Amino acid sequence: MNALSPTERSTIRRGKKRAVADRGALHAVLDAGLICHLGFVADGAPVVLPTGYGREGDTLYVHGSTGAASLRAAAGGAEVCVTVTLLDGIVYSRAVFHFSVNYRSAVVHGRARAVTGRDEKLAALRVITNHLAPGSWEYAREPDQRELAATAVLALDLTEAAVKIRTGPPGDEQADLDRPTWAGVLPLRRSWGPPDPCPELPAGVPVPEHVTSRPGPG
Amino acid sequence: MNALSPTERSTIRRGKKRAVADRGALHAVLDAGLICHLGFVADGAPVVLPTGYGREGDTLYVHGSTGAASLRAAAGGAEVCVTVTLLDGIVYSRAVFHFSVNYRSAVVHGRARAVTGRDEKLAALRVITNHLAPGSWEYAREPDQRELAATAVLALDLTEAAVKIRTGPPGDEQADLDRPTWAGVLPLRRSWGPPDPCPELPAGVPVPEHVTSRPGPG
Repeated sequence: MNALSPTERSTIRRGKKRAVADRGALHAVLDAGLICHLGFVADGAPVVLPTGYGREGDTLYVHGSTGAASLRAAAGGAEVCVTVTLLDGIVYSRAVFHFSVNYRSAVVHGRARAVTGRDEKLAALRVITNHLAPGSWEYAREPDQRELAATAVLALDLTEAAVKIRTGPPGDEQADLDRPTWAGVLPLRRSWGPPDPCPELPAGVPVPEHVTSRPGPG
Repeated sequence: MNALSPTERSTIRRGKKRAVADRGALHAVLDAGLICHLGFVADGAPVVLPTGYGREGDTLYVHGSTGAASLRAAAGGAEVCVTVTLLDGIVYSRAVFHFSVNYRSAVVHGRARAVTGRDEKLAALRVITNHLAPGSWEYAREPDQRELAATAVLALDLTEAAVKIRTGPPGDEQADLDRPTWAGVLPLRRSWGPPDPCPELPAGVPVPEHVTSRPGPG
Protein backbone atom coordinates (compact mmCIF):
# COMPACT_ATOMS: atom_id res chain seq x y z
CA MET A 1 0.00 0.00 0.00
CA ASN A 2 1.54 3.26 -1.09
CA ALA A 3 0.04 5.74 1.26
CA LEU A 4 0.98 9.35 1.66
CA SER A 5 4.66 9.19 2.43
CA PRO A 6 6.28 11.86 0.29
CA THR A 7 9.25 9.69 -0.50
CA GLU A 8 7.27 6.73 -1.70
CA ARG A 9 9.22 6.46 -4.90
CA SER A 10 7.44 3.86 -6.95
CA THR A 11 4.37 6.00 -7.37
CA ILE A 12 6.37 9.13 -8.13
CA ARG A 13 8.20 7.07 -10.78
CA ARG A 14 4.86 6.45 -12.43
CA GLY A 15 4.02 10.12 -12.32
CA LYS A 16 0.72 9.57 -10.53
CA LYS A 17 1.76 11.10 -7.26
CA ARG A 18 3.82 14.21 -7.57
CA ALA A 19 5.46 16.96 -5.68
CA VAL A 20 4.02 20.24 -6.87
CA ALA A 21 6.37 23.16 -6.93
CA ASP A 22 3.90 25.80 -8.00
CA ARG A 23 2.83 28.38 -5.42
CA GLY A 24 -0.69 28.54 -6.82
CA ALA A 25 -1.13 24.85 -6.01
CA LEU A 26 0.03 25.47 -2.45
CA HIS A 27 -2.48 28.27 -2.05
CA ALA A 28 -5.23 26.14 -3.60
CA VAL A 29 -4.68 23.26 -1.16
CA LEU A 30 -4.53 25.60 1.83
CA ASP A 31 -7.66 27.41 0.69
CA ALA A 32 -9.56 24.15 0.09
CA GLY A 33 -8.80 22.67 3.51
CA LEU A 34 -10.92 23.43 6.56
CA ILE A 35 -8.62 22.54 9.45
CA CYS A 36 -4.90 21.96 9.74
CA HIS A 37 -2.75 19.73 11.90
CA LEU A 38 -0.26 21.83 13.85
CA GLY A 39 2.91 20.04 14.94
CA PHE A 40 5.35 21.31 17.53
CA VAL A 41 7.90 19.89 19.92
CA ALA A 42 7.11 19.84 23.64
CA ASP A 43 9.75 18.50 26.03
CA GLY A 44 11.50 16.89 23.09
CA ALA A 45 8.44 15.00 21.91
CA PRO A 46 6.23 15.77 18.91
CA VAL A 47 2.67 16.96 19.44
CA VAL A 48 0.14 17.13 16.62
CA LEU A 49 -3.14 18.97 17.20
CA PRO A 50 -5.97 19.90 14.84
CA THR A 51 -6.82 23.59 14.73
CA GLY A 52 -8.27 26.36 12.61
CA TYR A 53 -6.26 28.44 10.19
CA GLY A 54 -6.49 30.87 7.33
CA ARG A 55 -4.23 32.23 4.61
CA GLU A 56 -3.57 35.75 3.44
CA GLY A 57 -1.04 36.05 0.65
CA ASP A 58 1.98 34.06 1.76
CA THR A 59 1.15 34.17 5.45
CA LEU A 60 -0.62 31.35 7.23
CA TYR A 61 -2.47 32.28 10.41
CA VAL A 62 -3.11 29.56 12.97
CA HIS A 63 -5.54 29.97 15.78
CA GLY A 64 -5.75 28.87 19.39
CA SER A 65 -6.41 29.82 22.96
CA THR A 66 -3.83 31.60 25.06
CA GLY A 67 -4.46 28.80 27.55
CA ALA A 68 -3.12 26.20 25.13
CA ALA A 69 0.42 25.07 25.90
CA SER A 70 0.84 24.33 22.20
CA LEU A 71 0.26 27.89 21.17
CA ARG A 72 2.43 29.24 23.95
CA ALA A 73 5.29 26.94 22.94
CA ALA A 74 4.90 27.67 19.26
CA ALA A 75 4.53 31.40 19.83
CA GLY A 76 7.96 31.50 21.42
CA GLY A 77 9.52 31.26 17.98
CA ALA A 78 9.87 27.49 18.04
CA GLU A 79 9.78 25.45 14.87
CA VAL A 80 6.31 24.30 13.87
CA CYS A 81 4.92 22.21 11.05
CA VAL A 82 1.44 22.86 9.71
CA THR A 83 -0.09 20.19 7.50
CA VAL A 84 -3.36 20.39 5.57
CA THR A 85 -4.63 17.20 3.93
CA LEU A 86 -7.66 16.65 1.72
CA LEU A 87 -8.50 13.01 1.11
CA ASP A 88 -10.12 12.61 -2.31
CA GLY A 89 -10.51 8.87 -2.74
CA ILE A 90 -9.37 5.35 -1.92
CA VAL A 91 -7.25 3.68 -4.60
CA TYR A 92 -8.10 -0.03 -4.86
CA SER A 93 -5.32 -1.88 -6.67
CA ARG A 94 -4.77 -5.44 -7.91
CA ALA A 95 -1.97 -5.84 -5.36
CA VAL A 96 -2.28 -4.73 -1.75
CA PHE A 97 1.18 -3.17 -2.06
CA HIS A 98 -0.26 -0.60 -4.46
CA PHE A 99 -3.29 0.37 -2.41
CA SER A 100 -3.15 4.11 -1.96
CA VAL A 101 -5.23 7.23 -1.63
CA ASN A 102 -5.87 10.18 -3.87
CA TYR A 103 -5.23 13.32 -1.89
CA ARG A 104 -3.95 16.86 -1.80
CA SER A 105 -1.62 17.90 0.99
CA ALA A 106 0.42 20.92 1.97
CA VAL A 107 3.19 20.77 4.56
CA VAL A 108 4.54 24.08 5.85
CA HIS A 109 7.64 24.33 8.02
CA GLY A 110 8.96 27.33 9.86
CA ARG A 111 9.21 29.38 12.99
CA ALA A 112 5.89 30.80 14.03
CA ARG A 113 5.51 34.37 15.17
CA ALA A 114 2.92 35.34 17.78
CA VAL A 115 0.56 37.98 16.43
CA THR A 116 0.19 40.48 19.26
CA GLY A 117 -0.63 43.89 17.82
CA ARG A 118 -4.36 44.62 18.03
CA ASP A 119 -4.78 45.55 14.37
CA GLU A 120 -2.89 42.59 12.97
CA LYS A 121 -4.62 40.26 15.43
CA LEU A 122 -8.04 41.44 14.34
CA ALA A 123 -7.03 41.15 10.70
CA ALA A 124 -5.69 37.65 11.27
CA LEU A 125 -8.82 36.56 13.13
CA ARG A 126 -10.90 37.88 10.25
CA VAL A 127 -8.84 35.71 7.88
CA ILE A 128 -9.20 32.63 10.11
CA THR A 129 -12.93 33.16 10.74
CA ASN A 130 -13.71 33.77 7.09
CA HIS A 131 -11.68 30.73 6.10
CA LEU A 132 -13.71 28.48 8.40
CA ALA A 133 -17.00 30.27 7.75
CA PRO A 134 -16.82 32.71 4.82
CA GLY A 135 -18.74 35.92 5.37
CA SER A 136 -19.02 35.43 9.11
CA TRP A 137 -16.61 38.12 10.28
CA GLU A 138 -18.80 40.77 8.67
CA TYR A 139 -21.99 39.16 10.07
CA ALA A 140 -21.24 38.10 13.65
CA ARG A 141 -20.18 40.18 16.66
CA GLU A 142 -16.51 41.11 16.60
CA PRO A 143 -14.30 40.15 19.55
CA ASP A 144 -14.27 42.48 22.52
CA GLN A 145 -11.14 43.34 24.47
CA ARG A 146 -11.38 40.33 26.76
CA GLU A 147 -12.02 37.88 23.93
CA LEU A 148 -9.18 39.30 21.91
CA ALA A 149 -6.83 38.84 24.86
CA ALA A 150 -7.97 35.25 25.30
CA THR A 151 -7.18 34.34 21.71
CA ALA A 152 -3.72 33.45 20.49
CA VAL A 153 -2.80 33.75 16.83
CA LEU A 154 0.37 32.52 15.19
CA ALA A 155 1.71 33.70 11.85
CA LEU A 156 3.82 31.45 9.67
CA ASP A 157 5.46 32.39 6.40
CA LEU A 158 4.78 30.09 3.48
CA THR A 159 8.45 30.13 2.54
CA GLU A 160 9.24 26.50 3.23
CA ALA A 161 6.29 24.49 2.01
CA ALA A 162 5.66 21.37 -0.02
CA VAL A 163 2.57 20.26 -1.88
CA LYS A 164 1.84 16.67 -2.80
CA ILE A 165 -1.07 15.64 -4.95
CA ARG A 166 -2.08 12.18 -6.07
CA THR A 167 -4.82 11.73 -8.62
CA GLY A 168 -5.80 9.02 -11.04
CA PRO A 169 -6.03 5.24 -11.19
CA PRO A 170 -3.96 2.61 -9.36
CA GLY A 171 -0.28 2.17 -10.20
CA ASP A 172 -0.18 -1.62 -10.36
CA GLU A 173 2.68 -3.65 -11.80
CA GLN A 174 2.41 -4.52 -15.48
CA ALA A 175 2.41 -8.21 -14.57
CA ASP A 176 -0.75 -7.78 -12.50
CA LEU A 177 -2.87 -5.99 -15.11
CA ASP A 178 -4.40 -9.15 -16.58
CA ARG A 179 -5.67 -10.40 -13.24
CA PRO A 180 -9.44 -10.64 -12.93
CA THR A 181 -9.18 -8.33 -9.92
CA TRP A 182 -11.20 -5.14 -9.82
CA ALA A 183 -9.11 -2.01 -9.41
CA GLY A 184 -10.11 1.62 -9.41
CA VAL A 185 -10.85 4.60 -7.25
CA LEU A 186 -13.65 5.01 -4.72
CA PRO A 187 -14.09 8.79 -4.59
CA LEU A 188 -14.62 10.45 -1.22
CA ARG A 189 -17.17 13.25 -1.46
CA ARG A 190 -17.71 16.06 1.00
CA SER A 191 -20.87 18.12 1.18
CA TRP A 192 -22.70 20.42 3.57
CA GLY A 193 -25.81 19.10 5.26
CA PRO A 194 -28.80 21.37 5.95
CA PRO A 195 -27.99 24.12 8.49
CA ASP A 196 -29.06 23.08 11.99
CA PRO A 197 -30.19 26.21 13.88
CA CYS A 198 -29.23 26.79 17.50
CA PRO A 199 -32.23 25.85 19.71
CA GLU A 200 -31.87 29.18 21.52
CA LEU A 201 -32.29 31.27 18.36
CA PRO A 202 -35.05 33.93 18.60
CA ALA A 203 -37.99 33.22 16.30
CA GLY A 204 -37.75 34.55 12.76
CA VAL A 205 -33.98 34.88 12.40
CA PRO A 206 -33.28 33.74 8.83
CA VAL A 207 -30.34 31.58 7.80
CA PRO A 208 -28.07 34.14 6.13
CA GLU A 209 -27.05 33.75 2.53
CA HIS A 210 -23.37 33.24 3.34
CA VAL A 211 -24.48 30.01 5.04
CA THR A 212 -27.18 28.82 2.64
CA SER A 213 -25.11 29.48 -0.46
CA ARG A 214 -21.74 28.43 0.94
CA PRO A 215 -19.83 26.62 -1.82
CA GLY A 216 -19.31 22.90 -1.23
CA PRO A 217 -16.26 21.93 0.85
CA GLY A 218 -13.20 21.33 -1.30
CA MET B 1 -13.39 31.29 17.69
CA ASN B 2 -12.89 28.24 19.84
CA ALA B 3 -11.24 25.78 17.54
CA LEU B 4 -9.78 22.43 18.42
CA SER B 5 -7.21 23.26 21.04
CA PRO B 6 -7.66 20.72 23.82
CA THR B 7 -7.08 23.28 26.51
CA GLU B 8 -9.64 25.75 25.24
CA ARG B 9 -11.33 26.00 28.58
CA SER B 10 -14.40 28.07 28.02
CA THR B 11 -16.06 25.42 25.89
CA ILE B 12 -15.14 22.60 28.26
CA ARG B 13 -16.69 24.71 31.00
CA ARG B 14 -19.92 24.62 29.06
CA GLY B 15 -19.68 20.89 28.62
CA LYS B 16 -20.06 21.05 24.87
CA LYS B 17 -16.54 20.04 24.07
CA ARG B 18 -15.15 17.33 26.24
CA ALA B 19 -12.21 15.10 26.86
CA VAL B 20 -13.37 11.53 26.62
CA ALA B 21 -11.67 9.09 28.94
CA ASP B 22 -13.37 5.95 27.70
CA ARG B 23 -11.30 3.49 25.65
CA GLY B 24 -14.28 2.56 23.50
CA ALA B 25 -14.52 6.17 22.33
CA LEU B 26 -10.81 6.13 21.43
CA HIS B 27 -11.28 2.98 19.38
CA ALA B 28 -14.38 4.41 17.72
CA VAL B 29 -12.58 7.57 16.57
CA LEU B 30 -9.57 5.62 15.30
CA ASP B 31 -11.84 3.17 13.49
CA ALA B 32 -13.92 5.95 11.91
CA GLY B 33 -10.93 7.88 10.55
CA LEU B 34 -9.36 7.06 7.21
CA ILE B 35 -5.91 8.62 7.46
CA CYS B 36 -3.83 9.88 10.37
CA HIS B 37 -1.30 12.66 10.78
CA LEU B 38 2.01 11.25 12.00
CA GLY B 39 4.24 13.67 13.89
CA PHE B 40 7.90 13.11 14.64
CA VAL B 41 10.97 15.20 15.34
CA ALA B 42 13.66 15.45 12.66
CA ASP B 43 16.79 17.48 13.43
CA GLY B 44 14.96 19.07 16.32
CA ALA B 45 12.04 20.26 14.23
CA PRO B 46 8.53 18.83 14.08
CA VAL B 47 7.33 17.07 10.93
CA VAL B 48 3.68 16.18 10.36
CA LEU B 49 2.78 13.87 7.49
CA PRO B 50 -0.48 12.21 6.51
CA THR B 51 -0.37 8.45 6.22
CA GLY B 52 -2.39 5.25 6.42
CA TYR B 53 -3.00 3.32 9.62
CA GLY B 54 -5.07 0.62 11.22
CA ARG B 55 -5.90 -0.56 14.71
CA GLU B 56 -5.92 -4.00 16.24
CA GLY B 57 -6.87 -4.12 19.90
CA ASP B 58 -4.73 -1.52 21.62
CA THR B 59 -2.06 -1.40 18.94
CA LEU B 60 -2.00 1.20 16.22
CA TYR B 61 -0.15 0.28 13.04
CA VAL B 62 1.17 3.08 10.86
CA HIS B 63 2.31 2.51 7.34
CA GLY B 64 5.02 3.90 5.10
CA SER B 65 7.82 3.20 2.69
CA THR B 66 11.26 2.11 3.88
CA GLY B 67 12.50 4.99 1.74
CA ALA B 68 10.74 7.54 3.93
CA ALA B 69 13.04 9.34 6.35
CA SER B 70 10.04 9.80 8.63
CA LEU B 71 9.49 6.11 9.06
CA ARG B 72 13.20 5.43 9.50
CA ALA B 73 13.42 8.09 12.20
CA ALA B 74 10.27 6.97 13.95
CA ALA B 75 11.20 3.29 13.72
CA GLY B 76 14.33 3.96 15.73
CA GLY B 77 12.22 4.16 18.87
CA ALA B 78 11.78 7.91 18.75
CA GLU B 79 8.72 9.59 20.18
CA VAL B 80 5.87 9.99 17.73
CA CYS B 81 2.42 11.52 17.88
CA VAL B 82 -0.39 10.13 15.77
CA THR B 83 -3.52 12.25 15.41
CA VAL B 84 -6.79 11.30 13.75
CA THR B 85 -9.39 14.01 13.26
CA LEU B 86 -12.90 13.79 11.88
CA LEU B 87 -14.51 17.14 11.15
CA ASP B 88 -18.28 16.92 11.59
CA GLY B 89 -19.51 20.47 11.15
CA ILE B 90 -18.86 24.19 11.31
CA VAL B 91 -20.29 25.94 14.35
CA TYR B 92 -21.61 29.40 13.44
CA SER B 93 -22.01 31.53 16.55
CA ARG B 94 -23.42 34.99 17.34
CA ALA B 95 -19.89 36.15 18.24
CA VAL B 96 -16.84 35.33 16.14
CA PHE B 97 -15.01 34.40 19.35
CA HIS B 98 -17.30 31.38 19.70
CA PHE B 99 -17.00 30.11 16.15
CA SER B 100 -15.89 26.53 16.40
CA VAL B 101 -16.13 23.12 14.78
CA ASN B 102 -17.80 19.90 15.76
CA TYR B 103 -15.26 17.13 15.54
CA ARG B 104 -13.89 13.90 16.91
CA SER B 105 -10.15 13.58 17.44
CA ALA B 106 -7.74 11.09 18.91
CA VAL B 107 -4.16 11.98 19.80
CA VAL B 108 -1.79 9.11 20.57
CA HIS B 109 1.69 9.64 22.01
CA GLY B 110 4.44 7.11 22.42
CA ARG B 111 7.56 5.47 21.12
CA ALA B 112 6.96 3.57 17.92
CA ARG B 113 8.37 0.12 17.34
CA ALA B 114 9.35 -1.03 13.86
CA VAL B 115 7.48 -4.16 12.88
CA THR B 116 10.10 -6.41 11.29
CA GLY B 117 9.06 -10.04 11.72
CA ARG B 118 7.45 -11.42 8.56
CA ASP B 119 4.33 -12.75 10.27
CA GLU B 120 3.60 -9.64 12.32
CA LYS B 121 4.35 -7.43 9.32
CA LEU B 122 1.87 -9.31 7.15
CA ALA B 123 -0.70 -9.19 9.95
CA ALA B 124 -0.14 -5.47 10.41
CA LEU B 125 -0.42 -4.77 6.69
CA ARG B 126 -3.66 -6.72 6.64
CA VAL B 127 -4.96 -4.46 9.42
CA ILE B 128 -3.83 -1.30 7.62
CA THR B 129 -5.17 -2.42 4.22
CA ASN B 130 -8.51 -3.52 5.60
CA HIS B 131 -8.81 -0.28 7.54
CA LEU B 132 -8.35 1.78 4.38
CA ALA B 133 -10.29 -0.61 2.16
CA PRO B 134 -12.21 -3.26 4.13
CA GLY B 135 -12.17 -6.69 2.55
CA SER B 136 -9.29 -5.90 0.23
CA TRP B 137 -6.57 -7.99 1.88
CA GLU B 138 -8.58 -11.13 1.18
CA TYR B 139 -9.37 -9.99 -2.38
CA ALA B 140 -6.16 -8.48 -3.81
CA ARG B 141 -2.74 -10.02 -4.35
CA GLU B 142 -0.71 -10.26 -1.14
CA PRO B 143 2.73 -8.65 -1.01
CA ASP B 144 5.66 -10.63 -2.36
CA GLN B 145 9.06 -10.75 -0.71
CA ARG B 146 10.30 -7.59 -2.45
CA GLU B 147 7.18 -5.59 -1.70
CA LEU B 148 7.22 -6.67 1.92
CA ALA B 149 10.83 -5.54 2.23
CA ALA B 150 9.96 -2.17 0.68
CA THR B 151 7.21 -1.49 3.20
CA ALA B 152 7.82 -0.11 6.67
CA VAL B 153 5.31 -0.59 9.43
CA LEU B 154 5.37 1.03 12.84
CA ALA B 155 3.50 -0.22 15.89
CA LEU B 156 2.36 2.15 18.61
CA ASP B 157 0.64 1.19 21.86
CA LEU B 158 -2.56 3.05 22.63
CA THR B 159 -1.42 3.57 26.20
CA GLU B 160 -1.08 7.33 26.13
CA ALA B 161 -4.00 8.65 24.15
CA ALA B 162 -6.58 11.38 24.40
CA VAL B 163 -9.94 11.75 22.73
CA LYS B 164 -11.74 15.04 22.25
CA ILE B 165 -15.23 15.30 20.89
CA ARG B 166 -17.33 18.40 20.32
CA THR B 167 -20.95 18.12 19.34
CA GLY B 168 -23.97 20.34 19.59
CA PRO B 169 -24.89 23.98 19.10
CA PRO B 170 -22.76 27.11 19.58
CA GLY B 171 -21.63 28.12 23.05
CA ASP B 172 -22.38 31.83 22.86
CA GLU B 173 -22.45 34.19 25.82
CA GLN B 174 -25.83 34.63 27.51
CA ALA B 175 -25.71 38.34 26.65
CA ASP B 176 -25.56 37.56 22.93
CA LEU B 177 -28.52 35.17 22.76
CA ASP B 178 -31.09 37.84 21.95
CA ARG B 179 -29.21 39.18 18.97
CA PRO B 180 -30.95 38.77 15.62
CA THR B 181 -27.90 36.84 14.46
CA TRP B 182 -28.29 33.37 13.03
CA ALA B 183 -26.30 30.72 14.84
CA GLY B 184 -26.17 26.98 14.38
CA VAL B 185 -24.23 24.15 12.88
CA LEU B 186 -23.50 23.49 9.21
CA PRO B 187 -22.92 19.73 9.14
CA LEU B 188 -20.09 18.35 7.03
CA ARG B 189 -21.12 15.12 5.32
CA ARG B 190 -18.85 12.51 3.81
CA SER B 191 -19.97 9.95 1.27
CA TRP B 192 -18.51 7.62 -1.33
CA GLY B 193 -18.94 8.51 -4.96
CA PRO B 194 -19.53 5.83 -7.60
CA PRO B 195 -16.49 3.51 -8.02
CA ASP B 196 -14.31 4.69 -10.90
CA PRO B 197 -12.75 1.62 -12.57
CA CYS B 198 -9.13 1.58 -13.67
CA PRO B 199 -9.00 2.16 -17.46
CA GLU B 200 -6.72 -0.85 -17.81
CA LEU B 201 -9.20 -3.27 -16.24
CA PRO B 202 -9.97 -6.33 -18.41
CA ALA B 203 -13.55 -6.40 -19.69
CA GLY B 204 -16.13 -8.02 -17.47
CA VAL B 205 -14.42 -7.69 -14.09
CA PRO B 206 -17.24 -6.80 -11.69
CA VAL B 207 -16.96 -4.26 -8.89
CA PRO B 208 -16.72 -6.51 -5.83
CA GLU B 209 -19.26 -6.32 -3.06
CA HIS B 210 -16.75 -5.09 -0.49
CA VAL B 211 -16.48 -1.95 -2.65
CA THR B 212 -20.11 -1.52 -3.72
CA SER B 213 -21.49 -2.07 -0.24
CA ARG B 214 -18.77 -0.32 1.71
CA PRO B 215 -20.40 1.53 4.61
CA GLY B 216 -20.31 5.30 4.36
CA PRO B 217 -17.17 7.01 5.66
CA GLY B 218 -17.44 7.93 9.34
